Amino acid sequence: MSRPAHRKPGYHKTNKDLFVLTYGALVAQLCKDYEKDEDVNKYLDEMGYGVGTRLVEDFLARSCVRRCHSYSEIVNIIAQVAFKMYLGITPNVTCNNSSRNEFSLILDKNPLVEFVEELPTGRSSLCYCNLLCGIIRGALEMVHLAADVTFLQDRLKGDSVTEIGIKFLKKLDKKNIGRKNEK
Amino acid sequence: MSRPAHRKPGYHKTNKDLFVLTYGALVAQLCKDYEKDEDVNKYLDEMGYGVGTRLVEDFLARSCVRRCHSYSEIVNIIAQVAFKMYLGITPNVTCNNSSRNEFSLILDKNPLVEFVEELPTGRSSLCYCNLLCGIIRGALEMVHLAADVTFLQDRLKGDSVTEIGIKFLKKLDKKNIGRKNEK
Repeated sequence: MSRPAHRKPGYHKTNKDLFVLTYGALVAQLCKDYEKDEDVNKYLDEMGYGVGTRLVEDFLARSCVRRCHSYSEIVNIIAQVAFKMYLGITPNVTCNNSSRNEFSLILDKNPLVEFVEELPTGRSSLCYCNLLCGIIRGALEMVHLAADVTFLQDRLKGDSVTEIGIKFLKKLDKKNIGRKNEK
Repeated sequence: MSRPAHRKPGYHKTNKDLFVLTYGALVAQLCKDYEKDEDVNKYLDEMGYGVGTRLVEDFLARSCVRRCHSYSEIVNIIAQVAFKMYLGITPNVTCNNSSRNEFSLILDKNPLVEFVEELPTGRSSLCYCNLLCGIIRGALEMVHLAADVTFLQDRLKGDSVTEIGIKFLKKLDKKNIGRKNEK
């Protein structure tokens, strides 16, 4: 996944509607294939995990982020650099506990649901954007951080915002956070 | 799918790696789910069809293309405007027969396979990018044009270029081509 240094930044930009609509078609198809919302959610999370494990290398190469020294720094980079780079939005970050290993990304806007008005009928437990949770989980795992990543609130379910919860499960290993091969 | 007129053009741009890797994960998952390449190809085509039927409205609203008077014009708009807008590439167009209803889009580069070196083992009949055929077919149908859209050559199969064939099946109905609601 290395890239030639001379490639123009603009080359990587493309119209997101193709992605958003393709993602919508994927979710719709999964809802046909799987009766239970839980199975669709799991499928999306697993797909996302695979995407995240590959995307992280590209992200580290292109974002030039430095080594992080806390979970808080990591979550801020996910929100301010990764979400901005890949989805064009910057979620707000909150820390949810005193041991500072549980955080939330608060999304006022969610480009992935731009063409979605509501959840499909009878799909009240569907986590439509669960791919995002899988991506974050997969990307974190590639920098040796285990985390539970789940939707805590979802505008599609009537909540006022969309909120992704990230709970780090292991002690921070400073050697391994951020750039895997930092000089 | 209408958009506010004040929205900045840049808002629609996003990093395509997320789409390309998500698409790759989708194809990989389908290869697990379906034994026959034909079934994966059909699934991708059908998903693409659904995407195309929705994407075309957005495309017509944003591209400001005028009414077309020939199949040739339509294919050139697909290549020069739609591919450029959604994938950042401009395929070459060739006309393949004297009745001028069969065309090819020749792709020197294909962003969708950027992270793909070769087809998965035992998947020699897989049309990895068949989503694109479905999208073109679906979009054309929404402007009342029936077409067969298939891969004729594929670099992933060892061909020197990737070639998408478009064969129009009905007589051109000038009233219905291009903008559906043109003033």
